Amino acid sequence: MKVKEIMDKEFIAVSPGDRVVDVSLKMEKTRKFTTPVVDDEGKLVGWVTSFDVMRGLRDGVELVSDVMQPPERIVHVNENDPARLAVLETAHHKLVSVPVLDDEGRVVGVVRSFDIVETLSQLYEIKVYKIFEAMNSELKGVSWDELMEAAAIITRRRTGKRIKPKEYEERIRNSTFGEAIWATGGLEKFFVGLIAIGELVIARKIARARK
Amino acid sequence: MKVKEIMDKEFIAVSPGDRVVDVSLKMEKTRKFTTPVVDDEGKLVGWVTSFDVMRGLRDGVELVSDVMQPPERIVHVNENDPARLAVLETAHHKLVSVPVLDDEGRVVGVVRSFDIVETLSQLYEIKVYKIFEAMNSELKGVSWDELMEAAAIITRRRTGKRIKPKEYEERIRNSTFGEAIWATGGLEKFFVGLIAIGELVIARKIARARK
Repeated sequence: MKVKEIMDKEFIAVSPGDRVVDVSLKMEKTRKFTTPVVDDEGKLVGWVTSFDVMRGLRDGVELVSDVMQPPERIVHVNENDPARLAVLETAHHKLVSVPVLDDEGRVVGVVRSFDIVETLSQLYEIKVYKIFEAMNSELKGVSWDELMEAAAIITRRRTGKRIKPKEYEERIRNSTFGEAIWATGGLEKFFVGLIAIGELVIARKIARARK
Repeated sequence: MKVKEIMDKEFIAVSPGDRVVDVSLKMEKTRKFTTPVVDDEGKLVGWVTSFDVMRGLRDGVELVSDVMQPPERIVHVNENDPARLAVLETAHHKLVSVPVLDDEGRVVGVVRSFDIVETLSQLYEIKVYKIFEAMNSELKGVSWDELMEAAAIITRRRTGKRIKPKEYEERIRNSTFGEAIWATGGLEKFFVGLIAIGELVIARKIARARK
């Protein structure tokens, strides 16, 4: 996934010659805490946060050019960078938004932290049930009931708790991947549990075929 | 994971009787775009964003109580809520921060979107190698080389591309879980690939034991 796929193209941009008071109205109207400052060609020449605008309003500064931060201090990404880079910059520098440039240095979008949250959270929200369905369709000759039975057996072996196959099925219908990795103690452990279930059904399938 | 585990306890809070100009200085100094407004007991009575402060500065409003948003309009979570709830609220309402309350309605923290990004991105950053190591330790009687060989075979079957076990090993050493699920087309497909590899090594192990 590239930055251009997660960026907001509906960003606002202001000019160095704009009045601070007008920028504050524009930011409030569009609910943007930050905005890029661009020249006539759309190139990034500065960055204004609501802190800069508040300071300008307090001190009676008239123009954006007198409150903006210089471009060399702005964390930015290229539209063709991996989306992962924008994610890491956001987390590392604790940013709410990161301007996105094209190869000519023009601002073409802004990556926002809450949009990243939405994108990243989708993985966590996948139902565990979906993973078992995929596993079931991959393991030819293994029925859904056999898979649930194996899952119940592995769960008992690992946790010491008895659970019926139907209860297991009910549980994975309601739980998300995020909850499951949290409950099992991490991605690797969650996956190891699946492999153990897979190993059991495969061994049973082979034993059955041998008869 | 609970909200209290991902919230920022170093938040700022202001009072309804504080001056708007002082709040703007405090927000700028601490780099907070938003702040909860609390009463003498620390209970949430309002919420101020930098838009409210900018408006107050523009219009010459003196007190926080005259620019703050009423508590009933503030999206908030309880410290014991699942962290997942704060994540979903942040994504759904496009928020940069969400106040966290205790059972008495006191503000005990603030969840920030970039902190959520950091927490959520950790899962994506896990090396694929780690998952194979866990798989290898679970599958008793299967060596690492056998696992890599099976992985290379499955890769060829699925993509048509020849890859040596050593090359496969090199690839998973460098790639992250996030890149892998993106490259394979989603979480379910990624897991299905792993299950196929698991099935092959288990079948080979059983065949070997039979000899």
